[in-house]
Amino acid sequence: MRLLANHPEAKVVVVTSRKLAGKPVSSTHPHLRNVYSLNFEAPSAKEVADRCDIVFTAVPHGTAMDWVPDLLDAGTKVIDLSSDYRLPVDVFEKTYGTKHRAPRQAVFGMTELHPEVAGAKLVGNPGCYPTGATLAVAPLAKAGLVDRVVFDSKSGISGAGAEPTETSHYPNMAENVIPYKLTTHRHVPEIKQELGRLSPGVKVSFTPHVVPSVRGILTTAHVFAKEDAVNTIQDRAALYEIYREFYKNAHFIRMSEGVPRLASVRGSNFCDIFFEPEKGGDRLVVISAIDNLVKGASGQAIQNMNIMAGLDERTGLWFPGMAP
Amino acid sequence: MRLLANHPEAKVVVVTSRKLAGKPVSSTHPHLRNVYSLNFEAPSAKEVADRCDIVFTAVPHGTAMDWVPDLLDAGTKVIDLSSDYRLPVDVFEKTYGTKHRAPRQAVFGMTELHPEVAGAKLVGNPGCYPTGATLAVAPLAKAGLVDRVVFDSKSGISGAGAEPTETSHYPNMAENVIPYKLTTHRHVPEIKQELGRLSPGVKVSFTPHVVPSVRGILTTAHVFAKEDAVNTIQDRAALYEIYREFYKNAHFIRMSEGVPRLASVRGSNFCDIFFEPEKGGDRLVVISAIDNLVKGASGQAIQNMNIMAGLDERTGLWFPGMAP
Amino acid sequence: MRLLANHPEAKVVVVTSRKLAGKPVSSTHPHLRNVYSLNFEAPSAKEVADRCDIVFTAVPHGTAMDWVPDLLDAGTKVIDLSSDYRLPVDVFEKTYGTKHRAPRQAVFGMTELHPEVAGAKLVGNPGCYPTGATLAVAPLAKAGLVDRVVFDSKSGISGAGAEPTETSHYPNMAENVIPYKLTTHRHVPEIKQELGRLSPGVKVSFTPHVVPSVRGILTTAHVFAKEDAVNTIQDRAALYEIYREFYKNAHFIRMSEGVPRLASVRGSNFCDIFFEPEKGGDRLVVISAIDNLVKGASGQAIQNMNIMAGLDERTGLWFPGMAP
Amino acid sequence: MRLLANHPEAKVVVVTSRKLAGKPVSSTHPHLRNVYSLNFEAPSAKEVADRCDIVFTAVPHGTAMDWVPDLLDAGTKVIDLSSDYRLPVDVFEKTYGTKHRAPRQAVFGMTELHPEVAGAKLVGNPGCYPTGATLAVAPLAKAGLVDRVVFDSKSGISGAGAEPTETSHYPNMAENVIPYKLTTHRHVPEIKQELGRLSPGVKVSFTPHVVPSVRGILTTAHVFAKEDAVNTIQDRAALYEIYREFYKNAHFIRMSEGVPRLASVRGSNFCDIFFEPEKGGDRLVVISAIDNLVKGASGQAIQNMNIMAGLDERTGLWFPGMAP
Repeated sequence: MRLLANHPEAKVVVVTSRKLAGKPVSSTHPHLRNVYSLNFEAPSAKEVADRCDIVFTAVPHGTAMDWVPDLLDAGTKVIDLSSDYRLPVDVFEKTYGTKHRAPRQAVFGMTELHPEVAGAKLVGNPGCYPTGATLAVAPLAKAGLVDRVVFDSKSGISGAGAEPTETSHYPNMAENVIPYKLTTHRHVPEIKQELGRLSPGVKVSFTPHVVPSVRGILTTAHVFAKEDAVNTIQDRAALYEIYREFYKNAHFIRMSEGVPRLASVRGSNFCDIFFEPEKGGDRLVVISAIDNLVKGASGQAIQNMNIMAGLDERTGLWFPGMAP
Repeated sequence: MRLLANHPEAKVVVVTSRKLAGKPVSSTHPHLRNVYSLNFEAPSAKEVADRCDIVFTAVPHGTAMDWVPDLLDAGTKVIDLSSDYRLPVDVFEKTYGTKHRAPRQAVFGMTELHPEVAGAKLVGNPGCYPTGATLAVAPLAKAGLVDRVVFDSKSGISGAGAEPTETSHYPNMAENVIPYKLTTHRHVPEIKQELGRLSPGVKVSFTPHVVPSVRGILTTAHVFAKEDAVNTIQDRAALYEIYREFYKNAHFIRMSEGVPRLASVRGSNFCDIFFEPEKGGDRLVVISAIDNLVKGASGQAIQNMNIMAGLDERTGLWFPGMAP
Repeated sequence: MRLLANHPEAKVVVVTSRKLAGKPVSSTHPHLRNVYSLNFEAPSAKEVADRCDIVFTAVPHGTAMDWVPDLLDAGTKVIDLSSDYRLPVDVFEKTYGTKHRAPRQAVFGMTELHPEVAGAKLVGNPGCYPTGATLAVAPLAKAGLVDRVVFDSKSGISGAGAEPTETSHYPNMAENVIPYKLTTHRHVPEIKQELGRLSPGVKVSFTPHVVPSVRGILTTAHVFAKEDAVNTIQDRAALYEIYREFYKNAHFIRMSEGVPRLASVRGSNFCDIFFEPEKGGDRLVVISAIDNLVKGASGQAIQNMNIMAGLDERTGLWFPGMAP
Repeated sequence: MRLLANHPEAKVVVVTSRKLAGKPVSSTHPHLRNVYSLNFEAPSAKEVADRCDIVFTAVPHGTAMDWVPDLLDAGTKVIDLSSDYRLPVDVFEKTYGTKHRAPRQAVFGMTELHPEVAGAKLVGNPGCYPTGATLAVAPLAKAGLVDRVVFDSKSGISGAGAEPTETSHYPNMAENVIPYKLTTHRHVPEIKQELGRLSPGVKVSFTPHVVPSVRGILTTAHVFAKEDAVNTIQDRAALYEIYREFYKNAHFIRMSEGVPRLASVRGSNFCDIFFEPEKGGDRLVVISAIDNLVKGASGQAIQNMNIMAGLDERTGLWFPGMAP
């Protein structure tokens, strides 16, 4: 809602919450006070579809599948921020350990890799980690340079949601770095799906961490070159050209002059990328920085909305990060 | 520049820096990359005035006075973010221990208290602390309720500038709270000037602190009522009405439902205010929250620009804070 | 337990928890691993008393009163860290809104003000805020200089306990300052009791805040002098002498050369104090810094234990703060 | 000095500083006030050696070599915290780009791997990153399981020293994660030297990051098994036994029950280690946590001192981390 407040072509008309129905949105989100005068509502899917051209579903995985089909059938387009429509059904069911009750055809909503978002009725908005990881390495994968990549990602704690937990408890999180799901995070299949599409057989490892920041994901991609690409990854100009070409129409990807700062993307939809080859070795370190709540979630969702609606992808999203 | 990027009526045409002249603005401020393609320049005041309708001077106190008169004489309007044009000359000279070489008539740029900003050629944009402090108590002062007020302000460290110092060194600032200039901060005269104008004789004390946050000023105003106002300050509805009336045209002042959060105003031009009387006592605690870099500096400057240019004060500034 | 690990005269023999009985202490507190091999137990008061000379009761207010009398009757000494034995019964009942079921004679465990701790069977260990506030101003109150004092305290969030809450949720606490119970905090009666004992009629106001730090309380005491003391508070040497004399036997009180840093007391039992008079005014600003979990809780409790056991108050506690 | 304050067998007798000679140590380090009454001095090496049995040299690399030989020649033992005596001369010169003017025989002061510290006259105290990285993987390397390891380390900013810099500036460091020297950090040769000694030919990559914490290094070691060790790394019990055996005399190494927390080691000399194999893969993730200023610097130095002096390595160091 923050990001849509000044979108010139979109208007927020319905905000739903079973629990808070009837209350002003600003009572739970005081930063929206006076900017929005909407109340939470608890309408049916049909009622929502009657009033909206596009719906963002931001509910837990396993719940979206109860809403999305009705919304689609009622004729609205849907951008789903859960994980229900990002993966093939079998992969979804294995990853989330739950039966998929309502599979539908969907496009993986990473517009930089999926121009077919333009014609989609249903978009599965990517996970935050897969966004930072995939965008960092996709051009190299497409170019066939990558044998193996180890993603070591550092996320702000807002990625864990608004509910207080042991991990998000300030005395536990401050002055700490918390690796978790060291080898088993549910976002791995998304990364493998996207990079594997570009480079079949690429080996992917991923370990997430939370750091004492509110927002942001800094991804360190340790890329190991295929044997025949060891020389190529030492050639910075060639690599730069590979990125430039791959992202030539992608306004939100910025090749950074130095190591990206989370502040440069904070609150914005940009993904800043930088790389450095290990001299004389087979390793290339690629760093990407995104705001997990914007490019990694709602900003990317609006970018999808823009493209689905035939607008320039930048519409309403073309503002810099908040630094410092 | 971040705030002006999408201002519908303003266009940034010149950005000056002696030191960085010729370099892209985005090399120093990578968050602006691709959003601005301007380079720093080092023009004369005359050249600046030729190209601009309004100039923001953001230089150290004592330096603004070398630029402002030339800019005014060349016919442009000026909003000065230094302290050179906020105080009467004698008060300025005493407070800053320096001779004022170029006094000019200026309006104190707190639009909520100074509608005469509309016709001003030169506005002295208020200090960050005086903004949070004055806005918190002005309605009570105007109503004649206040005998004494003790402002205990807590600021994010960005208020100290971009230059690394002993205080801003992370290991010194993290996990700390640093009171400083306990009784002698240079912002005191601004607060006294503004509250004194509304309520002659009001007693003002002020002690600033920096806290381990980047942005934001949370001001705790311990207000002690005049003897004949002890009952009035216990009447929440009456107090609320005093604030409502005083700020009826002030879009950026929000009376908060609970204690204001810095996140609600982060990155925005809002000032959120809340109060609570001490039951059966003569003390009223008023809390205000602003972003020191926006409502406490550049946002307020743009608000001044809007009004000086005959625009709605909200133009280009009407967006919510970034929470979380 | 951290503080007692190397105490030369004390040995931890029983650690109780109904919920965790049978589990190693280090499973909940991994920092104690290999240093302690104790398991949590769930013994009766009688069993505890049989095995211990001194017991620390660290349970919620209202629960301590169910344990303390049995422990005392069984012949052990008790240091209670709850609020059950800090206040006269009537004040306790009014403040906490609950009936006191087991009043006993107790000493307020601030050894710098209460030498009678030496002979006590039961000590009510002071609250964290009252420790920082009272120690800052006690010498001035005793000297009859104080008309009114406004305590504006800033605490690390660990003071709110180990349970995750809305307030302790990292995205809410980081980059924020949260004032709360603006005029009604339950620690006020302790401060009034102690300062009022030294200076009957002194007016006390108190507003607490949490800041984004784990540990520490920085108290800003805005002291307003009695009319006949306005000159005295301008005399730094005289004030210094008042503090020196009052605290001549208090090893953990350090008069600071500059504004105290929380890092200087972090993890230690020190209370660092500094003051500055407002030139030509009636206000004196006094700053105190403590570690809320040490001097404000368990360190002070051990200091009490030392004195109750006839030891030097420094025994096992004489180590510096952890800076940075 | 904090760590030595209560060491039962050591006494600090000289503290040197050219710049601060004559000033009390506590004027620069207020946390030491009243605990130490020493002044800084500027004695010659000979004078220092006359008064001390053991000297810690904590000066920049390239400077230690001007002091250490004189100290040794004067008959004192030396523990050097710079990098001058950690590497063979040729490796040192290549890594630091400077001529070594005074090579001497030295032992690499990681007592868990170098029992010969016991008889050393000169110990090169390891770097902070190499400590966390080497201890995490040494047992696996020794067992011949490791083909390649990618160390992705996250350090608190105190590792960068006490001097304010662009990076340590609070608004730059807060809410950020800063990777640096992505492929070229000077600590790499130490890690390669130690792991290579245990497992010739092991491939080592290392990328350091600073995170918004004051203290601590969390090292994520992505270990890739040799082809014939792929099954072994899936066997947690076998791995655990490898670690247990390797560290059976190492009191400060703790195998952690869950992911290590920096708070568990904060301020202490412990190194906590945890591992998890990637199911069905060739990757094993090992996590280690140390306090960069203690086990990664002065604590390890004291541990070396203990062993050089024939004491139990735990003497004066056997206390838990400060949690929270």
